[in-house]
Amino acid sequence: MADDKKLTTRADDFSAWYNEIVLRAELADYSPVRGCMVIRPDGYGIWERMQRALDDKFKETGHRNAYFPLFIPESFLKKEAEHVEGFAPETAVVTHGGGKKLEEPLIIRPTSETIIYHMFAKWVQSYRDLPLLINQWANVVRWEMRTRLFLRTLEFLWQEGHTAHATHGEAEEEARRMLGVYRDFMESHMAMPVITGQKSNAERFAGALKTYSCEAMMQDNKALQAGTSHDLGQNFSKAFDLKFQTEAGGEDFAWNTSWGVSTRLVGGLVMTHGDDSGLRIPPLLAPTEIVIVPIYRSDEERSKVLEAADRIAANLKAWDRRAPGRLRVHIDRRDGIKPGAKYYEWEMRGVPVRMELGPRDLDKNQAVLVRRDTREKAPVSLNTLGEDVADLLRRIQRDMLTVARERRESNSTRTPITYDNFRQLMEGPGGFVYAGWCGGEACEQEIKDDTKATIRVLPDEEFCSAEPAATCLKCGRPSLAEAVWAKAY
Amino acid sequence: MADDKKLTTRADDFSAWYNEIVLRAELADYSPVRGCMVIRPDGYGIWERMQRALDDKFKETGHRNAYFPLFIPESFLKKEAEHVEGFAPETAVVTHGGGKKLEEPLIIRPTSETIIYHMFAKWVQSYRDLPLLINQWANVVRWEMRTRLFLRTLEFLWQEGHTAHATHGEAEEEARRMLGVYRDFMESHMAMPVITGQKSNAERFAGALKTYSCEAMMQDNKALQAGTSHDLGQNFSKAFDLKFQTEAGGEDFAWNTSWGVSTRLVGGLVMTHGDDSGLRIPPLLAPTEIVIVPIYRSDEERSKVLEAADRIAANLKAWDRRAPGRLRVHIDRRDGIKPGAKYYEWEMRGVPVRMELGPRDLDKNQAVLVRRDTREKAPVSLNTLGEDVADLLRRIQRDMLTVARERRESNSTRTPITYDNFRQLMEGPGGFVYAGWCGGEACEQEIKDDTKATIRVLPDEEFCSAEPAATCLKCGRPSLAEAVWAKAY
Repeated sequence: MADDKKLTTRADDFSAWYNEIVLRAELADYSPVRGCMVIRPDGYGIWERMQRALDDKFKETGHRNAYFPLFIPESFLKKEAEHVEGFAPETAVVTHGGGKKLEEPLIIRPTSETIIYHMFAKWVQSYRDLPLLINQWANVVRWEMRTRLFLRTLEFLWQEGHTAHATHGEAEEEARRMLGVYRDFMESHMAMPVITGQKSNAERFAGALKTYSCEAMMQDNKALQAGTSHDLGQNFSKAFDLKFQTEAGGEDFAWNTSWGVSTRLVGGLVMTHGDDSGLRIPPLLAPTEIVIVPIYRSDEERSKVLEAADRIAANLKAWDRRAPGRLRVHIDRRDGIKPGAKYYEWEMRGVPVRMELGPRDLDKNQAVLVRRDTREKAPVSLNTLGEDVADLLRRIQRDMLTVARERRESNSTRTPITYDNFRQLMEGPGGFVYAGWCGGEACEQEIKDDTKATIRVLPDEEFCSAEPAATCLKCGRPSLAEAVWAKAY
Repeated sequence: MADDKKLTTRADDFSAWYNEIVLRAELADYSPVRGCMVIRPDGYGIWERMQRALDDKFKETGHRNAYFPLFIPESFLKKEAEHVEGFAPETAVVTHGGGKKLEEPLIIRPTSETIIYHMFAKWVQSYRDLPLLINQWANVVRWEMRTRLFLRTLEFLWQEGHTAHATHGEAEEEARRMLGVYRDFMESHMAMPVITGQKSNAERFAGALKTYSCEAMMQDNKALQAGTSHDLGQNFSKAFDLKFQTEAGGEDFAWNTSWGVSTRLVGGLVMTHGDDSGLRIPPLLAPTEIVIVPIYRSDEERSKVLEAADRIAANLKAWDRRAPGRLRVHIDRRDGIKPGAKYYEWEMRGVPVRMELGPRDLDKNQAVLVRRDTREKAPVSLNTLGEDVADLLRRIQRDMLTVARERRESNSTRTPITYDNFRQLMEGPGGFVYAGWCGGEACEQEIKDDTKATIRVLPDEEFCSAEPAATCLKCGRPSLAEAVWAKAY
């Protein structure tokens, strides 16, 4: 943080800007192992708050946490044909243990469908054992060649929900329910608006019948797949013999879903909200919501201001007793660093509100609050500080979502567009393009080859255009579904 | 749980009893990967409550969470001589990634000192950056040959604290502080009394100057090493060039500590509190504190009793608003299972309090509470149920600790003992033996070879005998320190 060099701007080089923020806000660091990152306390603090909020929602919807082994026998991965094809090329393989070569190599889980449904098959006998609603918080490994901090790393942290149901209808409902849980979380906590919908077959999870996704738009107008939820049908239950006795006395294979979000969300948060001065963290996910910077010119002033700061911090911490977790306050007591340098640093770190507190403020029984998102500055009375800060934080949280939503909409193209114009758009500013699609994989592939854009989702009804295009963007045949096209992370 | 076969008793076969409880209370299950376990929701729920309580204590003492890579370059492990010697024989090795042979094999972390202190060396420049107080919640792998659910598995979950300090004194203080945090947690939450003290050199952590440990006595009189805290001196800082500029302007290597507890604690909880009917969970760690079993003989009675149960559960859940987490209540609504069978099942699962609720109870405006620990049964008025249940839970928590402490003391030998008697004791009932030790590794090794007993700790002062033996248990030379001997897990 002693680094005073100006941040690369988003306009100059979005990718360099992103890496610099992640490093300088101390969210993460490179590790000596290629492609693996170290998540530093300020980054992990955000992830912990994400975990807590999601975990509460999972439990409210009836799920329980469990833990399954890191290692997956190689033979397991091979039992579901599409699944192994999708994951085998990017596995890490343990061949030796305890100084000896293993008889069967062990795969480090890239995802846990295979081992989890193997266990479910042991636990489920009858329809009475269903639905079985399990979630796991874990690390997984996918051997990626090109990695980016948080966005794509060899090892990452995530949660993976795995459920088994008696009917396909219930499994579908579950897959959609968890997509909704993700969307709510991303909007209410991350202030990151998303479009939900279904993936095309080409973009489906390896082994799923259907994949649903939440897609967010980053500030470089590229899409980020922020969370997915899969209707697995009976693909895995058949591969792992996950059968149950039905209520009618027959026997059937169970219907499965799986769904996950990962530490990638921290990267999404940076790319949704960061600006050219650094990070901006939505209050609900900020490990520190308000930082108090004391201003003084003498020892006497220093002790007076710090004393007041302590009193204020104690009041703010105790203030909102009804809320789960009171206000999270930090006092920057460091001596020998000028207030301006501290402002600069806390802006880089993205703390939502800064309080400037000097002797003249105290004389007026006030403090000055500065919003990180808008830099708006206003004095507030110390008498009503608790309410005012809590209120300001709520406004920041709401405004950040509004700003992000407006940015997304102003970078979305919903009017009819020719394929030439589409290509120009994808070479230039990018963004989301709503266009007709004939449903053909050939068109999808050709567009991808031409422009690097992919179908992000076939959007859910509420996101569809009022008057969707009638013909396919590429071939001009009748459109079967509206598709959202974009370049993506 | 449909398994009605009686549990093996502790007296008959403690080891079989333990495995049966873990499986039948659905804490964990065997996995298809040798030596790895699946932690089921009822076991993971206990671990989650342990995590939450410990994490709060770590944060109160100034630590922050972070996350470091699963993979450790083979060359890193070799940098600290004792460390590699201790861990190399039990590592799992990744030799292939993304379909290719790796240039340098990657070790799956057996513990993370090496990679963490490598990162610390990047982050620490000056005394101003110290102390650096980090904790990580993670999975680790040690290639054990003989495994037991929770107690010794190839992969386990744990936390590992890692800190860097400017002076040896501060590091020592930290190592002792965290030992105290562990002890407090084990006694206050697990109701598992422990003896704290220092390990002999032979039992030290590979790479530490000193290892401190919390040792608990299980019901078979064997010791369980429940948590350790290490003063690492400058061993790792020298190996990883973790230097800092001192306040005086010089340069010095930092002083490190590390400390950890693992899912092994769940096994310790079972072996401390389980009885011949199943598990007994101390209330503070119980995912469900009270289970309501409705009693009825007709549909009419059923709806009346369940309606009352719903009302009671809602009241209990809302009752203790001041506490972090209100009462955790479950109603066993299953139809077609007799109350007696439900009692049996909940006893197996170890829920601290059972409430029996039938129509005659409702007529008397009462319910019957049954303690799992003592099986004591008493009617309580529905008017004061919240207070009464909360109070009962507090008493159970306290009494479980008292009972465990008394059991430990009655199986400890503090009177002078001949080596022959010691050997007989270790062949028979076992227990903790406080005896003199000359400090010689030869005596320690011979005793271990003879009896399988090891020095668990050189106990801290408060645990030492009033009149410790003056001579070594084995050789009769003057004793340098009192030692606690026991066979151990």
